[in-house]
Amino acid sequence: MLQLIGFDGDDTLWHSEGYYQAAGAEFTAILARYVDVTDCRVQESMLGTERRNLKLFGYGAKGMTLSMVETAIAITEARIEARDIHRIVELGKTVLDHPVELLPGIREAVEAVAVTHAVVLITKGDLFHQERKVAQSGLADLFRRIEIVSEKNEATYRRVLAEFGLASGQFAMVGNSLRSDIEPVLAIGGWGVHMPYHVTWAHELETGLSGQEQRLVTIEGPAGIPDAVARLHALTAAPVAA
Amino acid sequence: MLQLIGFDGDDTLWHSEGYYQAAGAEFTAILARYVDVTDCRVQESMLGTERRNLKLFGYGAKGMTLSMVETAIAITEARIEARDIHRIVELGKTVLDHPVELLPGIREAVEAVAVTHAVVLITKGDLFHQERKVAQSGLADLFRRIEIVSEKNEATYRRVLAEFGLASGQFAMVGNSLRSDIEPVLAIGGWGVHMPYHVTWAHELETGLSGQEQRLVTIEGPAGIPDAVARLHALTAAPVAA
Repeated sequence: MLQLIGFDGDDTLWHSEGYYQAAGAEFTAILARYVDVTDCRVQESMLGTERRNLKLFGYGAKGMTLSMVETAIAITEARIEARDIHRIVELGKTVLDHPVELLPGIREAVEAVAVTHAVVLITKGDLFHQERKVAQSGLADLFRRIEIVSEKNEATYRRVLAEFGLASGQFAMVGNSLRSDIEPVLAIGGWGVHMPYHVTWAHELETGLSGQEQRLVTIEGPAGIPDAVARLHALTAAPVAA
Repeated sequence: MLQLIGFDGDDTLWHSEGYYQAAGAEFTAILARYVDVTDCRVQESMLGTERRNLKLFGYGAKGMTLSMVETAIAITEARIEARDIHRIVELGKTVLDHPVELLPGIREAVEAVAVTHAVVLITKGDLFHQERKVAQSGLADLFRRIEIVSEKNEATYRRVLAEFGLASGQFAMVGNSLRSDIEPVLAIGGWGVHMPYHVTWAHELETGLSGQEQRLVTIEGPAGIPDAVARLHALTAAPVAA
């Protein structure tokens, strides 16, 4: 029977990806003064550098900013002016410093789920930045525990469940990313509530899921979360058919 | 009676500050081609930028690298070449990527303490980087729990103790930084084992402690840790004098 509900942070509780994409658009505008940014190689170079650096930097705005600086120097063959590099660093700071804006109805949804199940926040990224966002969200008190993790994979979810002394079948995760929030949870035998966000980081689009899996409910927005959890709960509580 | 012993990571279990200082020296060498780096204002500007940015970036090599880039642009009045900024980014990568080298004797010391007390690792900084270092250290299995935190203050230690269901008087922290490892632990009523490292980051030198406090044992190196813990244990176990 379902015992524990995990919630993702970025783009599930609060808006995030839009700030990264706005910074990316500004970055492209800066580069446009030096190179033809409509050339697909510019975009490929940016994504390639970011991907390589993820192994060293991990996720988050600071790593993204360092990757942008590196890409800008590489792609302009070091012709970029220091003032423009400074603007790129400032772009990163705006991402780190943006106000935390909750998705409409998310507080009510988490409160409703918390009446029937233990809830935890499992969010990925930079420790310091995520802590700031959690604090500013005003939602921290609703959660039994807040887990800030560097990667959301099967091992991460297994560790969290072990700390709660639960089996994977007793756990469901609510989030916007099939790759990070849903796929590894289903893979270890848990349940998922997928709530797509209107924009998705290219890196998070890599998934083997179709969205049509069993043990997965897809919803349109926060208002659908409590019902989705109740549906999964009923499934886990149902006697096995003879 | 002493129940739980916390160990710091950087410069307590493994060498760290030396890599940051080497990067800092290289950074100064790069700047020397543009400005008079013997001017104390250059050093002040660097430390000032880093300090301001700590509030937004938190601790760690990525934030330090972004601060170096910002400082270099400011101090050269944007005369610095993109190639040199790229070298600065590479400096940051060397800090993130350095091999983890344990302090001599530290494994034996942690193993000895683990025989008599529960041990936890409480390390500060970037989540991704610290996880890499913990994994590479080969020490992870010795610890009951690994806590990677963004700041080591009284609230942090109170939270860790609450999760273990212990009072502060049952906890001692072993570390090289009076500011981060010792002062907040003594302030909440815990005990400390101070093991100074041969270099200390300027930021960590800010402390109200003299090193002469009660409930604090100062040692020269890892070999002294088990005895220091035994001494504190005897103090906590002793009956109060009439």
